[in-house]
Amino acid sequence: MQIALLGGTGDLGAGLALRWGRDTDHDLLVGSRDPDQAREAASDYAARLDGTASISGVQNGDAAAQADIVVLAVSPYHLGDLLSTIGDRLSETAIVVTPAVGMERGEDGMSYAPPPQGSVAALVRERTPDPNPVVGAFHTLPAGRLADLDTTLDFDTLVFGDRADAVAQVREVAESIDGLGTLTAGGLGNAAAVESLTPLLLTLGAENDAHGLGLKIQ
Amino acid sequence: MQIALLGGTGDLGAGLALRWGRDTDHDLLVGSRDPDQAREAASDYAARLDGTASISGVQNGDAAAQADIVVLAVSPYHLGDLLSTIGDRLSETAIVVTPAVGMERGEDGMSYAPPPQGSVAALVRERTPDPNPVVGAFHTLPAGRLADLDTTLDFDTLVFGDRADAVAQVREVAESIDGLGTLTAGGLGNAAAVESLTPLLLTLGAENDAHGLGLKIQ
Repeated sequence: MQIALLGGTGDLGAGLALRWGRDTDHDLLVGSRDPDQAREAASDYAARLDGTASISGVQNGDAAAQADIVVLAVSPYHLGDLLSTIGDRLSETAIVVTPAVGMERGEDGMSYAPPPQGSVAALVRERTPDPNPVVGAFHTLPAGRLADLDTTLDFDTLVFGDRADAVAQVREVAESIDGLGTLTAGGLGNAAAVESLTPLLLTLGAENDAHGLGLKIQ
Repeated sequence: MQIALLGGTGDLGAGLALRWGRDTDHDLLVGSRDPDQAREAASDYAARLDGTASISGVQNGDAAAQADIVVLAVSPYHLGDLLSTIGDRLSETAIVVTPAVGMERGEDGMSYAPPPQGSVAALVRERTPDPNPVVGAFHTLPAGRLADLDTTLDFDTLVFGDRADAVAQVREVAESIDGLGTLTAGGLGNAAAVESLTPLLLTLGAENDAHGLGLKIQ
């Protein structure tokens, strides 16, 4: 499967690229606004995996155009621009995956700051062509531990979306990472509840001197 | 330590009474509006523990008056009445613990429905005498598995409050239950983020045919 990691030079993109590169034989397209930076990151990830993985770096739009699954691994504040760039380049069946969360720092730690649409996923849905399913996933994965291949993962990620086939496909791709489990969290209407977990985990990390926390549901 | 479980005839009250009764030597006061029901529940719990635990059943106000830690294990919609009953009977140093969550069922599953104060904990704070610290805890524990002593627990509970000494004391009492870990989630300002986890866990249970889910942060 072709997986595009847009904003793939960032922390979450690096973590997912390295894990999928090591644990699966998916073709990974690391996207960036700047194709040189994309190529550089892709080479770096490939080198860290001893050249055993299929990882190439291209401009975000080119990555999106080739992919079955397109992960929007960017800050939520860059999503609007990114979606304008890729909207007319997605293949008709591409699944758009949103892991981003809007947050703000307050007196009590980090808190959830959704866009006016009510959730980041709702914003993505609004700005994505109708035929392409939008699925939320990977919100609660600590990027640093994901990118550290010496860390054995034991986390769950919550996957939600309005198209059951797309949710199932994203769950399968997520579970192809060793140590990563998934649960479905229902439809896009539950996006805010799931996205809210990220600032809570950051607050818990800060309050308990335990950075890089993830969760497991059992 | 004297622990009062107000509304202790309900699911969460039963679970906490049985676990503390089995795993610790705290004195447990099972409270109810009806002292006969309280006594009946206390006898039932004591019998399930082969009479090895100190568990007595009394009216809610009497339980609150004797306790170092007072757990409000009632539906959030009964909290107002309960707090009116016990407010002037609490000892000056008693810690009031709120595990309750307001929820409603919608199209996408359960969702968080806080009271006008912004969180159940904020409501409890508003209605509790100033000197008594209010601490949130036990929101994410699946009551059924807690009350089933054949289930080995492996969960965390998030504890929050504005008085560090009270938070520390509640964490210690919570961790005296085998298999239960705690993290601090900061102050009462984070109450809504923590209380929101309960409807999310119920939604995940329903969506994944896995009822009685709890969480672990790692």
